[in-house]
Amino acid sequence: RKTHRIAVLPGDGIGKETVPEGLRVLDAAARRFGFDLELSHYDWSCETYAQTGKMMPDDGLDQLAKSDSVFLGAVGWPGVPDHVSLWGLLIPIRRGFDQYISLRPCKLMPGARTPLADRGPADIDFYVVRENTEGEYSSTGGKMFPGTEREFVTQDSVFTRVGVDRVLKYAFELAMTRPRRKLTSATKSNGITFTMPYWDERFAEMAKNYPGVTTDQFHIDILCAHFVQHPDWFDVVVGSNLFGDILSDLGPAVAGSIGIAPSANINPEKKFPSMFEPVHGSAPDIAGKWICNPIGQIWSGAMMLEHLGEKAAADCIVKAIETLLAEGGPRTRDMGGNAGTVDVGKALAEAV
Amino acid sequence: RKTHRIAVLPGDGIGKETVPEGLRVLDAAARRFGFDLELSHYDWSCETYAQTGKMMPDDGLDQLAKSDSVFLGAVGWPGVPDHVSLWGLLIPIRRGFDQYISLRPCKLMPGARTPLADRGPADIDFYVVRENTEGEYSSTGGKMFPGTEREFVTQDSVFTRVGVDRVLKYAFELAMTRPRRKLTSATKSNGITFTMPYWDERFAEMAKNYPGVTTDQFHIDILCAHFVQHPDWFDVVVGSNLFGDILSDLGPAVAGSIGIAPSANINPEKKFPSMFEPVHGSAPDIAGKWICNPIGQIWSGAMMLEHLGEKAAADCIVKAIETLLAEGGPRTRDMGGNAGTVDVGKALAEAV
Ligand SMILES: CC(C)[C@H](C(=O)O)[C@@H](O)C(=O)O
Ligand SMILES: CC(C)[C@H](C(=O)O)[C@@H](O)C(=O)O
Repeated sequence: RKTHRIAVLPGDGIGKETVPEGLRVLDAAARRFGFDLELSHYDWSCETYAQTGKMMPDDGLDQLAKSDSVFLGAVGWPGVPDHVSLWGLLIPIRRGFDQYISLRPCKLMPGARTPLADRGPADIDFYVVRENTEGEYSSTGGKMFPGTEREFVTQDSVFTRVGVDRVLKYAFELAMTRPRRKLTSATKSNGITFTMPYWDERFAEMAKNYPGVTTDQFHIDILCAHFVQHPDWFDVVVGSNLFGDILSDLGPAVAGSIGIAPSANINPEKKFPSMFEPVHGSAPDIAGKWICNPIGQIWSGAMMLEHLGEKAAADCIVKAIETLLAEGGPRTRDMGGNAGTVDVGKALAEAV
Repeated sequence: RKTHRIAVLPGDGIGKETVPEGLRVLDAAARRFGFDLELSHYDWSCETYAQTGKMMPDDGLDQLAKSDSVFLGAVGWPGVPDHVSLWGLLIPIRRGFDQYISLRPCKLMPGARTPLADRGPADIDFYVVRENTEGEYSSTGGKMFPGTEREFVTQDSVFTRVGVDRVLKYAFELAMTRPRRKLTSATKSNGITFTMPYWDERFAEMAKNYPGVTTDQFHIDILCAHFVQHPDWFDVVVGSNLFGDILSDLGPAVAGSIGIAPSANINPEKKFPSMFEPVHGSAPDIAGKWICNPIGQIWSGAMMLEHLGEKAAADCIVKAIETLLAEGGPRTRDMGGNAGTVDVGKALAEAV
C-alpha cells in the first residue's frame, strides 16, 4: 500500500472553501483505489503576511520539500499587492522547486457551456504546455534616466537551451500519449526576432527525435484567433512562459471551463514536489459564503493523483466530474444552479 | 477642392487583387464627396526582392514621403522569409515614418458571422490601439555560449516614457470621442515586473488628464479570456506592441471579421505619411484566382479617408459595407457566396 505525502495550502479567499472539498474527493479516491494520503497543513496566506510581514516562513520551501506534492487553493487578497503575495508564495514555489512545466487541460465538459456557437465536447479537448521558469518572466532589467523625458525601462526575455529543450521535450512526450499525436508551437518570430527564432530552431531540432508527432506552428496573434475559430485543430500546444500563460487562460475560456479548470506545475524528474492548483483565483467577492465552485480544485486533485502514479483514481475523478455536469448533478451558482460548495464536493466524493 | 496624394503599394499575392478594388471605391467616394486623389504606384514586393535583392530601393522611404498616405495591400510570399519581406518593407515603413499607433476596429458587422454564440452587432464594437514602434519588438539582444549546453538568447523589451505616453494619450483622446468613453489597459505587471508596472504607472498618470474617461485594466491572459466571454465590456483597449498585436487579431476573430478587418498605422502628428492595410495577408493559396474578399482593403481605404479629414466619405464607405453585408449583396467564397473580388468592389463603388 502506497503512501503519498501531500502539503496542503488553502491560501486565501475561496481557497479555504475549495481545498477541503478537494481533500474530501481525494480521500474517497484513496479509499476506493487503495492508497494512503499523509497530509501536512500550512496556513500560509495574505493573513500570514499581515501578521509576520512574510507570506511564508524563511524555511518554507524546506518544509514543503518533505512532501511529494503541494495541493494549493488560491493566493492573493485585496490590500496585499501581487508582487508581495504572488512573488512571496506562488512564484517562489514554482521556481524553487523547478516546476518548469505548467500543464493545463482545455476541455469542453459535457453539459458545460462554451461561449462558442455550435461546438461540442468533441471539438475542444487539448492541453497547453507552458514553460514556467524563464522567458519573458525574467528578473533582469531596469530603469534609466528616471523622472526625465529620456526615462526608459527595459526587461530582458531570457531563453536558455536547457530551459527551452526540456519544455519542448515534455510537450513532444505528451503528444506521443495522445491519440492524434499533434503538437503546435506558439511563436512570434516575425516580430520578436532574437528569442523567438531561437525557440523555433530548438523546436525544429527536437521534432527530429519524434517523427511520429505531427507538428505545426503559428504566431501568437493568429494562434489566439484560431483558438476561437478552430479549437478543434489543437491537441497539445506548447508556448513560452508568457505565450503559455495567455493560451492557458484563453483555452479554458473557449472551453467554457475557466471557472473549473485545473492546472499543474510540474517538476517532471520528481526531484522536487510538483504543485496543483485551480486556474481561478481567491475570488474575494464571494469568499466566505461557501457558494464557490470546487470543481477546479477537485480536478486539480485528479491531476495530482495522475502525477503520483494513481492514474485509475485520477480518471475516476474526472469521469465523476463529467457525469455530474452532464447529468445535472448539484451545480453552484456560476453554473446556473443553487448548490453550495460542500454539496458539490459531497456529490463527487460519493460518485468516486 | 482638396487633393490627397496616395502612395499605392499592392505588394504580394492577393494584395494585387484587393488594392484595385480599394481604389475603385476610393475613386467613387472622391467623385461623390468632391476631392481629388493623386496616385503614385509602387510595385515593391517579394518579386522586387527576387530581381534586385531588396524589397524596396534604398531611397524607398524618401519616395513615399512625398505622399500623404500609403495604401498597402499585403506583404509576404512563400520562399522569402519574413525577416526579409516584412523587415524589408512593412516594418521599415512603420518605423521610418514613426507610425507609432496601430489602430484596428473590432466590429461585428450586421450579417457577418461571429464564432460566438448569442452575440449581435450591439455586443462587439470596440477599437484596439497598439503601440507600434518599441516594446517587445526591440532590436537589442543576442546569443551567448552558442552551440553549447550553456547557450542562451536574450531580447530586451524597451518602454520609453515618450513611447508609452504618446500611445496612451492617443488612446485617451480616442476614448473621449466614443459614446461610452471607456478605456481598458492591457498589462501583465504581476508576471513581467519591470516594464509592465511602468506601463501601469504611466497609464495612471495619464488618466489624471482625462477625468471624463472611465478606465480599467486587466492582465493580458484574463483579458484575452474576457474578449471571448464579454466582448461587450470593451470600448477602446490599449496595449503594448505585443499585447496590441495579439488583441488586434483576437478582437477581429471574435467579431467574425478577421478576413475583412482593416488596420491603420498612424503618425498622428502627420509629420510623416500614415499607412493603411487590411489585417489579412497575401493568401498564396487563393492568389491569382480573383476570388478573395476585398472588403478589408476597402474598409482600410475608409480609415485612410478619415485620417485625411474626409470623415463623411469614410462613413459612407463603412455604411456601404454594412448594407452590403446585411442585405445579402455579392459575397466572396469566404463569406459563403460565389462572387468574385471585382463583383464586390463594383457593388461597393456603386453604393458609394
Ligand atoms: C507581420 C508582423 C510583424 C506583424 C506584427 O506583428 O506587427 C503582423 O502580425 C501585424 O500585426 O501587422
Ligand atoms: C499570478 C500570475 C503571476 C500567474 C502567471 O502569469 O504565471 C497567473 O496568471 C497564472 O497563470 O498562474
